[in-house]
Amino acid sequence: MNFFSKKANEILPYVPGEQPKDGEYIKLNTNENAYPPSQKVKKALDNLDVSRLKLYPDPESTILRETMAEILGLNKENIFVGNGSDEVLAIAFQTFFMEKDNILMPDISYSFYPVYSDMYNVKAKIVPLKDNFTIDINDYIVPNNGIIIANPNAPTSISLSRDEIEVIVKNNTNNVVIIDEAYVDFGGETVVSLINKYNNLLVIRTLSKSYSLAGLRVGFAIGNKELINGMNKIKNSFNSYPIDFIAQTLAVEAIKDVEYFDKTRNMIIDTKQRIKKQLENIGFTVLESKANFLFIMHKDKKAEDIYNDLRKNKVLVRFFNKPKINNWLRVTIGTDEQMDRFIKIIKEIVG
Amino acid sequence: MNFFSKKANEILPYVPGEQPKDGEYIKLNTNENAYPPSQKVKKALDNLDVSRLKLYPDPESTILRETMAEILGLNKENIFVGNGSDEVLAIAFQTFFMEKDNILMPDISYSFYPVYSDMYNVKAKIVPLKDNFTIDINDYIVPNNGIIIANPNAPTSISLSRDEIEVIVKNNTNNVVIIDEAYVDFGGETVVSLINKYNNLLVIRTLSKSYSLAGLRVGFAIGNKELINGMNKIKNSFNSYPIDFIAQTLAVEAIKDVEYFDKTRNMIIDTKQRIKKQLENIGFTVLESKANFLFIMHKDKKAEDIYNDLRKNKVLVRFFNKPKINNWLRVTIGTDEQMDRFIKIIKEIVG
Repeated sequence: MNFFSKKANEILPYVPGEQPKDGEYIKLNTNENAYPPSQKVKKALDNLDVSRLKLYPDPESTILRETMAEILGLNKENIFVGNGSDEVLAIAFQTFFMEKDNILMPDISYSFYPVYSDMYNVKAKIVPLKDNFTIDINDYIVPNNGIIIANPNAPTSISLSRDEIEVIVKNNTNNVVIIDEAYVDFGGETVVSLINKYNNLLVIRTLSKSYSLAGLRVGFAIGNKELINGMNKIKNSFNSYPIDFIAQTLAVEAIKDVEYFDKTRNMIIDTKQRIKKQLENIGFTVLESKANFLFIMHKDKKAEDIYNDLRKNKVLVRFFNKPKINNWLRVTIGTDEQMDRFIKIIKEIVG
Repeated sequence: MNFFSKKANEILPYVPGEQPKDGEYIKLNTNENAYPPSQKVKKALDNLDVSRLKLYPDPESTILRETMAEILGLNKENIFVGNGSDEVLAIAFQTFFMEKDNILMPDISYSFYPVYSDMYNVKAKIVPLKDNFTIDINDYIVPNNGIIIANPNAPTSISLSRDEIEVIVKNNTNNVVIIDEAYVDFGGETVVSLINKYNNLLVIRTLSKSYSLAGLRVGFAIGNKELINGMNKIKNSFNSYPIDFIAQTLAVEAIKDVEYFDKTRNMIIDTKQRIKKQLENIGFTVLESKANFLFIMHKDKKAEDIYNDLRKNKVLVRFFNKPKINNWLRVTIGTDEQMDRFIKIIKEIVG
């Protein structure tokens, strides 16, 4: 007896980073923010009208889209909201790439992209990074039916400049180019300002990283009105109300608190630079990071061994057992205290 | 230029009931609960650790699944959680029905089912209800590749008994039978107790109606462990964390407050019986409802005219401009005060 669809039989799901249920770990494995969300989120929660939960939320997340549009100098028609950037990506794949072939993506990038490709019958054309883990933009100026690039890329942490992305976008005007900017606020250059110039550019954002709201599940797509309309058709054929009332309310307040946003992302950038140097001093190669994590390799000790030793010491980092990156570790930037402890432990491990 | 996938070009999305942004309407159009959620939800919100939002939620909603399992006398392996029962239904369609033909569903039922069929390439076989809007179970004891029935059905409000559903389930052991029990707590008979007897039965539930939490987006599928595992594969190929931390936390408290749940659903059942009689007294035919809404037709006045007149008087009900039901209205049961005002206004309209 097999009750399942062909897809349910065959698909290999994405495996998220571990979420330990006890709180004793230093958790540097899923690129969450080191700092709590804005106090304005707390205040909005305290003032929330619980009885409002009996009603459905606004299916169009109007106020949230208006707030995001205002911050970015755009209109709400340029903004799509989803249940985290994962849902936004899944809907973008269905809207622009489903059933198509020759969709370009880097061989080393967010590992959910190949899962979406399998899920939505996309024939991806996997483009190898250069040996130094950078993207060669010329690889994306070739015939194709769509492009997705994470910028900064994950898990490498390396970024393309706005000008480099623009070269890709303007040489692919027949296809949608998706730039996943989940980590852009930690030092990268956003291409959001280009969406009014190019109707084929879609930018993906999330509140999970730079806004300290991974637990709230809010992500965005930003693009030309026509692209956003197409995504709404798919979303409204799937789930009318994917963003609950509380998430819509709290997300608005987090976005409005620009001061706290700037303060915390700058703290993480500062900690990152300090920790990068300390890791280099004890024999690590550390890629130039524009994200809230470092991608590191030790000159002597194997990544998997370091990963296991860290784990024994109650520090979680991310190890990907995949070709080309299986001697590297991805380390989220935590608070200064967490990172000092991380450095102390990893020094002992590699010393 | 067409940037879209074939599906994004062709799909006709679901249109949810209107969510007016001002509060001046008596809102009897989307089957929300008349009463606010349990005070325990409010208390959980007050005690929520906002800093926890910086971390991803439990991707498996473990505590929530355990809580629901305990209430139902099952194990957490029997429970799937999604972002409202719409997401649960979408994932169930992908897991069990996608790309299949001959999936049976009633011609008059939840209007999202045909949208899911289009979205996931399901060739539905549409089974007409009998003239009195009831389901003939013999229509479902024929060769097929899957069945979905809402019980109680919407928008008719009519219910099959547990025994009738069991006859369908036990005569379709090669196929999955999905029973959507969104409205069952308002007077219907649940078939949850049959899931240990039949491995082909999947029951869908939601907190949106009987738990007063439409704004929170929590729905469930309940079934044999193997069915639930299949749904998890599809879910984890789409979005690892569709239920945010706050929704998981608050849902647990709502489910635990059995006393409030029973009190409010009984209040709605009582109001419903009272309003049914009053509508009958002024010339309405009212179907026997096991849901939190009534399906009504007037002997003289056209449904669309009543709908428009109610709207002018700031009362929203649902009118479906579809064959067979375009002279009927679906009216959600509100508070006694709301329903008294509704009766007063509709009396004037048909009087």
